Parts: sequence; C-alpha cells; structure tokens
Amino acid sequence: MKYASIGPVTTHFFVFAQPPASLTLESGRSLSHVTVAFETYGNLNAQKSNAILVCHALSGDAHAGGISIEDNSPGWWDGMIGPGKALDTDKYFIICSNVLGGCRGTTGPSSNNPLTGKPYALDFPLITIADMVEAQRNLIDSFGIEKLLCVIGGSMGGMQALQWASAYPERVRAAIPIATALKHSPQQIAFDEVIRQSIMADPAWRQGYYYEHGQPEKGLAVARMIGHITFMSDLSMEEKFSRKLKNEKLSFQFTDDFEVEGYLRYRGNNFVKRFDANSYLYITKAMDYFDLSGDKFMPGVKKSPVKFLVISFKSDWLYPSYQSQDIVRVLKQKHAYTTYFDLTSTYGHDAFLIEIADETRLIRNFLANIRID
Amino acid sequence: MKYASIGPVTTHFFVFAQPPASLTLESGRSLSHVTVAFETYGNLNAQKSNAILVCHALSGDAHAGGISIEDNSPGWWDGMIGPGKALDTDKYFIICSNVLGGCRGTTGPSSNNPLTGKPYALDFPLITIADMVEAQRNLIDSFGIEKLLCVIGGSMGGMQALQWASAYPERVRAAIPIATALKHSPQQIAFDEVIRQSIMADPAWRQGYYYEHGQPEKGLAVARMIGHITFMSDLSMEEKFSRKLKNEKLSFQFTDDFEVEGYLRYRGNNFVKRFDANSYLYITKAMDYFDLSGDKFMPGVKKSPVKFLVISFKSDWLYPSYQSQDIVRVLKQKHAYTTYFDLTSTYGHDAFLIEIADETRLIRNFLANIRID
Repeated sequence: MKYASIGPVTTHFFVFAQPPASLTLESGRSLSHVTVAFETYGNLNAQKSNAILVCHALSGDAHAGGISIEDNSPGWWDGMIGPGKALDTDKYFIICSNVLGGCRGTTGPSSNNPLTGKPYALDFPLITIADMVEAQRNLIDSFGIEKLLCVIGGSMGGMQALQWASAYPERVRAAIPIATALKHSPQQIAFDEVIRQSIMADPAWRQGYYYEHGQPEKGLAVARMIGHITFMSDLSMEEKFSRKLKNEKLSFQFTDDFEVEGYLRYRGNNFVKRFDANSYLYITKAMDYFDLSGDKFMPGVKKSPVKFLVISFKSDWLYPSYQSQDIVRVLKQKHAYTTYFDLTSTYGHDAFLIEIADETRLIRNFLANIRID
Repeated sequence: MKYASIGPVTTHFFVFAQPPASLTLESGRSLSHVTVAFETYGNLNAQKSNAILVCHALSGDAHAGGISIEDNSPGWWDGMIGPGKALDTDKYFIICSNVLGGCRGTTGPSSNNPLTGKPYALDFPLITIADMVEAQRNLIDSFGIEKLLCVIGGSMGGMQALQWASAYPERVRAAIPIATALKHSPQQIAFDEVIRQSIMADPAWRQGYYYEHGQPEKGLAVARMIGHITFMSDLSMEEKFSRKLKNEKLSFQFTDDFEVEGYLRYRGNNFVKRFDANSYLYITKAMDYFDLSGDKFMPGVKKSPVKFLVISFKSDWLYPSYQSQDIVRVLKQKHAYTTYFDLTSTYGHDAFLIEIADETRLIRNFLANIRID
C-alpha cells in the first residue's frame, strides 16, 4: 500500500521567552528571545487530545513530513507522516520542532545575541536534552495541549522522548524511543569528541566566532564523514559499495579511488551547506551529557503512567540493541506498560529513517491501543 | 612465568637500491636509494634456517623487542620476543623492519629525495603492501636467508605475512596472520579515508609539502583519535572509562569533561610527536589497496607449502573475526595446513598487542611443529 504525502508544508515560528521572561537552562544560565521553529500536520481535535510530538535526531529539523513549499524537499520522515501512514494525519495532530541549539529556525549559536546584535557563537550557553524538551514544552503549552498522545523519535529524538516521559509523566500518554539510549557509552562520547575536535581543529572555526567569515567547512565535512560511517553498518556498506572503484583502475594517487570514499566526500561537502558547525558542537555535547540511567529516570514515580514502545535494530552498532534493552529494564522497574522490538535490518543506525514498513506496523498497532480521550 | 627482556637493542640500517639499482613498485614507478631500518634479536644459525620476520602494524616500527638504547623504550611486542618467550631468542633469529613508506628509519615520504635534496613529500610514489614485502625481501636476501621459518604480524603486519606467503610460498615455512584481512571492507576504507581527509583538511598540511614548517599537528591528532576509537571495543572503553568525569562536575563548557575525551586528546597530541602525517597517508592507502581475496592469493599454487596459524579476537570490530574466517577459507582452497583460533578478549583490535599469554600459548605450540632443519 502506498500512501500519499501530505503535500505542501511550511515551517512556522513560535517566539517565547521574550523579556522579562526567559528560559532557564540546566546549566543555571538563561536565554531570552527564544524562537522555536516547528511544523504541524493534521488537525488538533477539540479536546486537544490527539497531538503527537515528533523529535528529530542530531542533524534533523522541524521539516519531518510533507513537501516544503520553500525548497520542494520531502520531510525527513515523510514515509511515516501523512493520511493512512503510521503517524496518521487523518487521526492525529503531528508537531515537529527544531531543537534548541539547532540552526534550522530555533534559537541556537548562529542566532543573533540580543545583547550584541551579532550571532551568539560560543557565547551561547551549553544546552541539554532537558533544555530542548523545555523549549518544546513551551511550544506545546502555546497550543493549549495539556497532554500529548505520544512523543516519538529516533536517536537523539528518542532521548527527547525519554526525557519528556521522565520529566512530564502526567503530560504524555505514550512514548516511542527508537534506536536510542538512556546515556551515551564512552564509545559514543568518543565519536562525538572526535567530531568536535575535527571542527575545532579547523582554523576557520576561529574559536567559534566565524560567522562573518563563513563556516569551518573542511573540519565540519570531516566531522560529518565520521558520523556517516557510524550511521551505516559494516554489511550495509558492503552491500552498497563493496570495493567498487570509481574509475577502471586504482589511481595510485590520493584521490577517491573507491566509491565509498566518493560517497563520504560528497556527504561531507554537502553537509556544510546546510548545517552550522557550532550547532554540531552544542548538540553533540547535549547528547553526551544526557543521562537518565538508573534512578535518574522518572524520579519519584512508582508506577509509570506512560506506555512505551521501544525499538532497536540488530545491525545498529552506534546505538546497539543492548542500550534499548537497558531502557526496557528501567521501564520495567517503573512497572511501565512496555513493548520492545529488536528489528532485523542491515541498515545500521540509519535503519530508523529507512525501515518505514516495519516501524509503521509496530507503531500503528501500538498507537491504536493508546486512548485518544 | 615471567621472562626477561632481551635487554638493550638498537636499530640498524640496510641500504639497497643504490643506483643503478632501484626498487620497482607495483605502481610501475621506481625508487632508488632505499634504506630499510631493522632490528634483530637472537642469533642466525649456521644453516640460516631459524629466522622469523616480525611485521609491524600501521604506526609501528622496527623496534619490536628489547629496550632501545636510544630512548629506553621497550619494543612494541617485547612481551612476545625474548629468551623463553613465544618468539624465543634462544631458538630463533628474529628480524623486524620498518615498512617502506614509514617514518622510522625506512625510506618514506619524509626521506630526502635524492633528485632535489629535500624530503619527497607528495613526490613519493604510492606504495603497496607488496612493495613493503619487496623491501623486506631485499633485507632477508642480504642476510643470505633462503627461507624464513615464519612471517608473523598483526593488523597490517598480518597483511604482510599473507603477502609473503602468497608471493613467496617457497621462501616461507609458516605464516601467522593475526587480526587481519585479505582485503579492507568498505567500512575499513571509510575509516582510512576520514583519517586521510582529517590530515589533508589541515592547512598546515600544505598539500603535503610541510617539512620546512612542521607537521599538520591538529589534523594528524584528530586522525589518530579516530584510529584509537576503532582499536578499542565498546566493552573495553566501558571498562576503562565508563562515564567517569575528569573533574567533579560537568563543566558546561567545551572542555574534556569525560575521561575518555581526555584520553583521546592525549593520545592524539602524543602521536604527532612521533609520526609523520604523510606516512600515515601513504600507509593507510597501501592497506586500502591490499587485496589477496579469491584467486589473487598464491596464484598458480595448487597445494600451499606454507603452514598457517590464523588468529582473530571476538571483540575486534575493526578487523572482525569473519575476515579471518575468510582467510581460512582461502587457505583451505589451497589445501594449506591451517590452524585457526578466534580468541576471547574484550580489548578489540588492540588485543593483538595485549593478549600476550594467549598468543604465546598458540604461537609456541604452532612453531614447535615447524621444522627448523
């Protein structure tokens, strides 16, 4: 069955934390003039009880579904969002917002610092996953939504889903964390640190104050190349590239002899056109700081009112299945209604963006059992 | 049982390919004035039949055993080489040489180009694993050794062991490839490509012609950090670092909050003091080009005269066990006497440098059955 896209969409902007109000951050610092970029699909019902918040991953944005009227691009989860799809816009009101610290419309290090009139750059305070969720909560409040039907996301989006359930168990009926973790392992921190070091090693980074001069393109491209390796599996790379050459023979020069090299260079160079290097630093740091393990999850709650669907992918070595199983273990301690699937896929961490059919089957069934009213 | 080190050692230099002679490379280009740096431990017997060639990995060198009289450092495989050890210097004559393209005494991109009197830099021709073995063969010939008792090495050292057996089956009695592969997978190529891109992204690399100005330190440090992540396993990082902080609290700054970050920064910064960035480029490219899969191994040979011990480590995800099993499969097709062990270790790819006790047991038994004469 093939479902239609929801068609043309555009991004909206919600401005909150205008002085004297401000957003107090986990670090103790605060931000005023906070804008959240968001998109919505479908209609909010009269009881405001059918809202699903979709949370994006590291380099995602608010454009999750439909076709952008600005640049004709499909949303990053368009296969999941629309009439008849897993996140069915005939039933649900879908909201997706760009994260705090991002560079796709929500306030982040590339936004203007109202104190200087120039981009914050490294004067932007470090933010956490909890801070991202606080920005989203302000957006949800602005709709008058008391309780979300569901919060869903993959990777860092899954961290936000967990954070929502943990911080606001009474405001979320269900949560679907996909291919994610309660906390980064040292290996995940290590990859993020190398990504940050790669950006910071580029003299064009200028200690973060590069906005008048242009991006640290080379460092950011290398950072993204590292990311892309971790998003794929050994097997999916073998299936896609094997040792295929770009040309007939080895060049015996330092060119991209192998297709996989050309792919990485292409992805790296493309990324610098659409993503701010400082946002990459801030968001990776937020992921590394995230830790809801053990007692830190749903503190004080004996029995979770939130229902969970947890999904991992067997070939995902960046967020290995054992991390999702750790989530399930913590949920069981909270006596939460929990369904867990470890899906077979060769796509590695990217699977949460690709395995639409499997995710649709699981998510549709799970949501069908969540009371809308 | 604890065995003594062989004590003070020093590196020697063997100069060959002086004009009019030269070393013809796989690329078709040639090199004259080639020097090979090497160390030896133990004594060559009268029949010259007890020689074992040890081949080093990516960033290794000729100093495999003993204590360097230059800087007091122990050899990188000192636990394996010495009286009573796996590579027993009471029985065997051990040779280890720095690879062609390296920067630790053997001719490489940082060596003087006799045509210009300046370092070759990027005028150095691309070299292959087969070219490295040809340089070693010249060294072996200079000793008058007709037949090596064994060629042994881990990682890229294992590639050289395979290349020796494949190119010179009549000159090697036994080969011990450890934690290695017949060819790099696209994931391995991808990591190498990102490593190269990281070096090349540093403006201090100056298209390779940096020798008058100093190393591209930042790019090389990031490159090495990437390497270090791939050398360890998820579990060994968890055991060594977990999420331990360097200080009491999170800094909410872009410092190395976690011990694993400090470790990577330290290893990266240390590496630039001892290793030439261009050598890193040349050697990773040689590994990516290496391919002895299928019919390319021991061409024309029906029954391998070489005996093999193949070792892999279960937690090694950079050179996963299935690659060693691919080696075993090709060896079986050549009807080679083959012993294979997939050792349990949490250390990942680093295991071949660390799991000395297990390797000693296997290698000592295997070598005991190889006729010295």
